[in-house]
Amino acid sequence: MAKFFIIGAGPGETDLLTVRAARALSRADVVLYDRLVGDDILSLAPKLARKIYVGKGSGEQEIGQAKIFENFVRLSEQDLNVVRLKGGDPMIFGRGVEEWLFLHELGCEVELVPGVSSATGLPAMLGIPLTARGASRGFAVVTGHGLAGAPIEWSKYSSVDTLAILMGVSRRVEIAKELIQLGRNPKELVCFIENGSSQQQKVITSNLEKVASQSVEVKAPAVWIIGNVVAFYEKLHAHVSLSESPKEIFSENILQVSNEQ
Amino acid sequence: MAKFFIIGAGPGETDLLTVRAARALSRADVVLYDRLVGDDILSLAPKLARKIYVGKGSGEQEIGQAKIFENFVRLSEQDLNVVRLKGGDPMIFGRGVEEWLFLHELGCEVELVPGVSSATGLPAMLGIPLTARGASRGFAVVTGHGLAGAPIEWSKYSSVDTLAILMGVSRRVEIAKELIQLGRNPKELVCFIENGSSQQQKVITSNLEKVASQSVEVKAPAVWIIGNVVAFYEKLHAHVSLSESPKEIFSENILQVSNEQ
Repeated sequence: MAKFFIIGAGPGETDLLTVRAARALSRADVVLYDRLVGDDILSLAPKLARKIYVGKGSGEQEIGQAKIFENFVRLSEQDLNVVRLKGGDPMIFGRGVEEWLFLHELGCEVELVPGVSSATGLPAMLGIPLTARGASRGFAVVTGHGLAGAPIEWSKYSSVDTLAILMGVSRRVEIAKELIQLGRNPKELVCFIENGSSQQQKVITSNLEKVASQSVEVKAPAVWIIGNVVAFYEKLHAHVSLSESPKEIFSENILQVSNEQ
Repeated sequence: MAKFFIIGAGPGETDLLTVRAARALSRADVVLYDRLVGDDILSLAPKLARKIYVGKGSGEQEIGQAKIFENFVRLSEQDLNVVRLKGGDPMIFGRGVEEWLFLHELGCEVELVPGVSSATGLPAMLGIPLTARGASRGFAVVTGHGLAGAPIEWSKYSSVDTLAILMGVSRRVEIAKELIQLGRNPKELVCFIENGSSQQQKVITSNLEKVASQSVEVKAPAVWIIGNVVAFYEKLHAHVSLSESPKEIFSENILQVSNEQ
């Protein structure tokens, strides 16, 4: 039987994998990888390992998942180390548990190696703490990508101190409007981290009201942080841009907004 | 000037550090470390590196923080690589941003290396996904440890699909009561992960009602997950105990509880 490793690749750069993940990848016979996993990370696997792309385009979720399960069945009876490599953490919007259950039912041994989630790691590296004394006692991570027929009940999430939204930038205008309607302060700071942990990283800070008024341009993939903890980024950003060199775009009156609070 | 690395050590085992964190630690001249960081992780630093324990006992928060800042001042003017090593992720209940701001004001270069948070990594390894299609669209991470005079407003967090609570096990009875009063299902599954990612790891599953009635024994440090995603652990646990050998205690009628839902 094959042994499967369901591995989180972290937020992007190769050295943000855990040591355990890097080691498992270096011993893989087969790697099944997703769209958000870069070539640098794949190059940690042996040259002779088979690398099978199983990413899904939008609208292809179910076809894609069936293809992954077919690969699992085909590989399961061979004596192989198979790495299933996912961006971020496999158990946060990664369908990791569905794949683990499927493999468990096939009778395969499975080891899950957690990863640094983009939702926590990207803001942390920029100087945005999801929790901070006096500013945020907790945070929520939620997907902005409502499935057809099952919109997200934002009222469940709207009152937490800090929100981290994954896969929601194309719906940012309606989400911002709804959060304001549900009682969040329109002047509350927000930050979008586009293409985080890559050469193309772009950091966009603004506030909820501006996002609601369609004046903030953002492209997927992006992590979206909502909360006044974004003010820490502003305090630290001169330093961050020195060491990280992100291309930064500030809304013209962010200083004014944070002074108001 | 010293260069400071504020590093997340992850949930416990040494190979759950990121490659970046392990590398920075291996080049450290000085390591300032917290209580939850184990000897195995410290041994990644050079033998000749100075290792300074700056953990805080309960009630010593402010004294401890002053001591850390004194060390920062003393070390800042020397040409050293200083690692500030924290359990989990430094920006999730780690006061990482306060330390970064302090160092920034001293004029030091700071690099933050994120870690796998215990709140996400420990349940993931056990087979508890914080999100899962059809079961959890999002999750919140919150501290159960209310500061004197500033109790946590559980109503802000009580309606999210899945809750991960850090530093709250000694208050579990009152927290469970309050969450039930705020509308969570008393039969909802919970899981405590004591001493996660260590030889002493212990996994305790139960439900909210039993926690509220004082019938569940748990010792700190523990991560507490509340949500029906805990049912996945039950489905997978025979497998998990095979590979991970946690000492497991099941409440006698967990199967019955999950069948009811």
